[in-house]
Amino acid sequence: MNTWGNIFRLTSFGESHGTAVGGVIDGCPSNITVDLDFIQNELNRRKPGQSDITTSRKEPDRVEFLSGIYEGKTTGAPMAFMVRNSDCHSEDYDNLKDVFRPSHADYTWYLKYGHRDHRGGGRSSARETIARVVAGAMAKIVLRENGIHIVAYTSQAGNIRLEKPYTELDFGNIEKTPVRCPDGETAAQMTALIREVQAVGDTIGGVITCVCKGVPAGIGNPVFGKLSAALANAMMSIPAAKGFDYGMGFEGVHQRGSEVNDLFYRTDSGSIGIRSNHSGGIQGGISNGEDIYFRVAFKPIATLLQPQSTVDTNGNAVIVKAAGRHDPCVLPRAVPIVEAMAAMTILDQLLLA
Amino acid sequence: MNTWGNIFRLTSFGESHGTAVGGVIDGCPSNITVDLDFIQNELNRRKPGQSDITTSRKEPDRVEFLSGIYEGKTTGAPMAFMVRNSDCHSEDYDNLKDVFRPSHADYTWYLKYGHRDHRGGGRSSARETIARVVAGAMAKIVLRENGIHIVAYTSQAGNIRLEKPYTELDFGNIEKTPVRCPDGETAAQMTALIREVQAVGDTIGGVITCVCKGVPAGIGNPVFGKLSAALANAMMSIPAAKGFDYGMGFEGVHQRGSEVNDLFYRTDSGSIGIRSNHSGGIQGGISNGEDIYFRVAFKPIATLLQPQSTVDTNGNAVIVKAAGRHDPCVLPRAVPIVEAMAAMTILDQLLLA
Amino acid sequence: MNTWGNIFRLTSFGESHGTAVGGVIDGCPSNITVDLDFIQNELNRRKPGQSDITTSRKEPDRVEFLSGIYEGKTTGAPMAFMVRNSDCHSEDYDNLKDVFRPSHADYTWYLKYGHRDHRGGGRSSARETIARVVAGAMAKIVLRENGIHIVAYTSQAGNIRLEKPYTELDFGNIEKTPVRCPDGETAAQMTALIREVQAVGDTIGGVITCVCKGVPAGIGNPVFGKLSAALANAMMSIPAAKGFDYGMGFEGVHQRGSEVNDLFYRTDSGSIGIRSNHSGGIQGGISNGEDIYFRVAFKPIATLLQPQSTVDTNGNAVIVKAAGRHDPCVLPRAVPIVEAMAAMTILDQLLLA
Amino acid sequence: MNTWGNIFRLTSFGESHGTAVGGVIDGCPSNITVDLDFIQNELNRRKPGQSDITTSRKEPDRVEFLSGIYEGKTTGAPMAFMVRNSDCHSEDYDNLKDVFRPSHADYTWYLKYGHRDHRGGGRSSARETIARVVAGAMAKIVLRENGIHIVAYTSQAGNIRLEKPYTELDFGNIEKTPVRCPDGETAAQMTALIREVQAVGDTIGGVITCVCKGVPAGIGNPVFGKLSAALANAMMSIPAAKGFDYGMGFEGVHQRGSEVNDLFYRTDSGSIGIRSNHSGGIQGGISNGEDIYFRVAFKPIATLLQPQSTVDTNGNAVIVKAAGRHDPCVLPRAVPIVEAMAAMTILDQLLLA
Repeated sequence: MNTWGNIFRLTSFGESHGTAVGGVIDGCPSNITVDLDFIQNELNRRKPGQSDITTSRKEPDRVEFLSGIYEGKTTGAPMAFMVRNSDCHSEDYDNLKDVFRPSHADYTWYLKYGHRDHRGGGRSSARETIARVVAGAMAKIVLRENGIHIVAYTSQAGNIRLEKPYTELDFGNIEKTPVRCPDGETAAQMTALIREVQAVGDTIGGVITCVCKGVPAGIGNPVFGKLSAALANAMMSIPAAKGFDYGMGFEGVHQRGSEVNDLFYRTDSGSIGIRSNHSGGIQGGISNGEDIYFRVAFKPIATLLQPQSTVDTNGNAVIVKAAGRHDPCVLPRAVPIVEAMAAMTILDQLLLA
Repeated sequence: MNTWGNIFRLTSFGESHGTAVGGVIDGCPSNITVDLDFIQNELNRRKPGQSDITTSRKEPDRVEFLSGIYEGKTTGAPMAFMVRNSDCHSEDYDNLKDVFRPSHADYTWYLKYGHRDHRGGGRSSARETIARVVAGAMAKIVLRENGIHIVAYTSQAGNIRLEKPYTELDFGNIEKTPVRCPDGETAAQMTALIREVQAVGDTIGGVITCVCKGVPAGIGNPVFGKLSAALANAMMSIPAAKGFDYGMGFEGVHQRGSEVNDLFYRTDSGSIGIRSNHSGGIQGGISNGEDIYFRVAFKPIATLLQPQSTVDTNGNAVIVKAAGRHDPCVLPRAVPIVEAMAAMTILDQLLLA
Repeated sequence: MNTWGNIFRLTSFGESHGTAVGGVIDGCPSNITVDLDFIQNELNRRKPGQSDITTSRKEPDRVEFLSGIYEGKTTGAPMAFMVRNSDCHSEDYDNLKDVFRPSHADYTWYLKYGHRDHRGGGRSSARETIARVVAGAMAKIVLRENGIHIVAYTSQAGNIRLEKPYTELDFGNIEKTPVRCPDGETAAQMTALIREVQAVGDTIGGVITCVCKGVPAGIGNPVFGKLSAALANAMMSIPAAKGFDYGMGFEGVHQRGSEVNDLFYRTDSGSIGIRSNHSGGIQGGISNGEDIYFRVAFKPIATLLQPQSTVDTNGNAVIVKAAGRHDPCVLPRAVPIVEAMAAMTILDQLLLA
Repeated sequence: MNTWGNIFRLTSFGESHGTAVGGVIDGCPSNITVDLDFIQNELNRRKPGQSDITTSRKEPDRVEFLSGIYEGKTTGAPMAFMVRNSDCHSEDYDNLKDVFRPSHADYTWYLKYGHRDHRGGGRSSARETIARVVAGAMAKIVLRENGIHIVAYTSQAGNIRLEKPYTELDFGNIEKTPVRCPDGETAAQMTALIREVQAVGDTIGGVITCVCKGVPAGIGNPVFGKLSAALANAMMSIPAAKGFDYGMGFEGVHQRGSEVNDLFYRTDSGSIGIRSNHSGGIQGGISNGEDIYFRVAFKPIATLLQPQSTVDTNGNAVIVKAAGRHDPCVLPRAVPIVEAMAAMTILDQLLLA
């Protein structure tokens, strides 16, 4: 189950301390110009160490394509790519060899597969998201040729929450803040909170909001395979994701039908307009041409610089404590991953429709 | 895309005013005794008109199996079933023939398929959930032979919210209240709210919580196909679902890693225990043997007894207003649907593991 | 695994002596006029008892659609259909209750599923092909709107073989002979052979040739999912099928590349023509616009009116001998089944391309 | 559609003159010792230039695994591998830049994808079979731990045909002859024929027979997904394959049911035996525990050293003639590919059952 998608598909491979991580993109339309700089730049956005509130491990991840491109364009053949793992200090993890780290995948992986690769999380390492970001970047390239644009941002970090709706934000500001929040004041509060958490070796969760503009009507399916279900599936596959909602979501459940129904009206030009978008651009599982927007909740990263009690594979009580610097908040790095999974989902459903 | 699942699969069919709704269950293990009374009873639970706070349309839905059962047991062959649509007053819908009802699937269906069946929502009618409940009941039968039990209940209706965690509730009370909330006092408040909403022809949303007990460790996949993603996909395919979270979910994002990490410890018997369950029974996409619990947010039903402005297929402004009685809150009926989708997901992943 | 196809999909259900056999067609394009008479007529073509060289059991199979059609057209919703099993003399099979019939699926089904339904073959009965023929008829309706036509005929029965290539045959004669062979003289020889075999309670195998005209270039995939592989998969799923080849097939392996390469040339109108069609319309897995033709080998039906030694479920030696009349040759009935599977395959690949 | 399989899956990538060819194996059981020498040896078996009757291009193909192996064992994570394309004299193909070679995939690829990579066949090059052989070798390793062994051999080259059934052959002789035919005399005749064809720059087709021993009963499915259909699908996906049959196949269609039915009997030990195996180890789509055997027909390779008339992309008539040495017969190299696809199919169905 390392393949994702129906028509536009990603098969992902690689573990934290193997030779390389990468993937194979299948089903990409042919004759698309491949903007390698854009893809590398997207990959740089997920890289740790971009600011002092993210982990400082150096990962000079360079993507190399092995197939599927000829004279700068896609051929319709599968596009394999890889990023070599250059920073493999496996010995750093020797003390974790037999330890189940709390709230990591160590324990469940061990139960399922009967062994473990203790080095940096193995296959369950966040490094697997490299493949998502590369494939998502390729999807974005195809989507933008179709006038579809996808943007995500940090809308909540811990208890600091951006109250403005996305329609009042300037997305051009997202990349200007280390937390990838487009509202300067809120971003500053978030940054302060993350520093505070970081100072004590702790971590904090939050929420990312994503907006998809230009998605044509008619994408998705009415029963199973709803566009909303496909997006939920994609988002919940991201490491540390704990929740998904779209449109009015969890926060609108206290409202009444008369408050949230989206009314159709005749526009001045005679076409059909919709007065509001509580539906989040999806009705009955199918896109209606309005903006699609949704949220993804992330738990705090499980790796702490604080000592935690746990057990080893023999069931003996031990204390575990990560060394070096750590990543106090997943959100800034998760923004491009959310975008990537959204881009792949929208493109896949577009090709399927 | 009317087939769901990998190994245990449901192919669903039928629209509101066709001959029948039903489905085909494929991949059910053989030699399972089919408890038809249980299945019919599950179907009765989703039936409208069970109490005065749900719609009063009479739908004496009787399930009929057409194949796959021999001498009272499953054979391993596909199990087709159907429920005839007996209550087909198509003419009741004649005034909706060309109208796009606000926040229904009418408009998107029309854009996708180039036509519409205006009678009761057609394929997008909630009647398609009959197939889910029947297949889910069959999944429950298989699961309970494996010691796995699934229970859902209404945990929020409008702004009335059950604050107690599921561990403090007596699930035996769920079916005793019309809103399917196991806490008597909260249930009474919810019922009062729904009556109030109903009195003015309006509708209200809410949240259902679901708990899966006895799921063995090792179910689900580490990257794509996470058990959490499979559950999200299943839940978001339910009509009117707007959000999904599991474990600490959206409400835990403000907490710190040191607060929510689930610590392993050595039990008195020498086995490995887990002190808390903020993970919701799933770590790194794979079940860890603890209770799996999650929430599903539902929007208010779009059909109101109040007049609403909209347009018809020609773009002309019209007023739409449902007639007769209506369903002020989807929650009581959605409880068995959530359980059904959860049962199918858990069984499918169990057979896949 | 009772679902077939990628986009145009059939989920099949039903066993010989259950309530009904049928299926659910998913992914059929919307707004197609459903010619129910044509579908019923296709179903009649597979019916036993059409002539004295086929089995004489009466099966007045009437197809009933349960969903997916509105005002005579497809809606895009799944099309469920069923044919009731009216001729269920289960007691006729009581003597087979514990017997493994030679070269039937009794034994393997028992090993796989741990039980058996001895009545008429259960799920492995040829009655399951009813669902194929109905879905194939629907596929044919869609294909003919796209100028694609599919015809099959008996090209070999026992050692009687039609030597003429398909290009020299008048397909209008196929339905005029009981063996569905368009060459009158050969058909007469085949009929005589089948009568001879029938007279001694035996059965005989043969070959069906199928031709697909009007398939546009570009259907199929270059590596996995070759159009030739998809056709092989479809044909080998038909009961009693033992072989598949296309174009020059098995019979051309002794030829040299210089003899069988299909040469391109410039036509008078300046377009690209192909001088021969040893490729059978598929090159590198993808259709090239020429006629697609292939053959399917069928073994003799395993049910004989002769006594055969076998064992029962306890391993005791017993003699089995079918009663009443039997079907001496599967070919006439298999012709519409081959066409149906070809139509479904071509349409599915067309929708996927 | 570059992914193959249900549980044990191969995603294949790479074109003839790109950076590398390779694949990702997903779903391989964990804790299997990976015999890299065996895998490399299997790859060497498909290499051109092993004898003077195969093409002499040097391809020192070395397989490199990038993931999924830890301490010499499979981990359950996807196993990515690649083989670099070292012999990329793209300029050798410049004269083919705009030419459609007869009976190659050039023309259909161009029609499907709107462009072409003329260098050595691009994605449609036989180099893609490298991925199959590597994944097949891994499948063989898992199968042999389960007592399942798969062997293929050349049973017909041109009109030279090995008449002995497989049961009379010594498989230990297969690798001793350049044509991979275990019967010395027949092998000598085949070799002579191939040399003769080679001398005039021509090519010749043939048949490969494959035998699977030790496959347990119960593998495969009764309707769609028959084991025979899965094998047909796999074999027909091999480049140049034109036909597939199993058991009595095409050659038994002239026989009668009374001649070919496989009779059950009670063995001396009281178990159930089968007197013959015309069924080829599969009855009703499901394995019965006997040997599975089947044949695959291959056309002559389309690349000739003789001049052939064709057209270019502009429709102009041109003459094409391959340079250097060529491969007069695909059979010796196809033997390990047939084995690989058989191994993958059997393992996939075994894991699915």
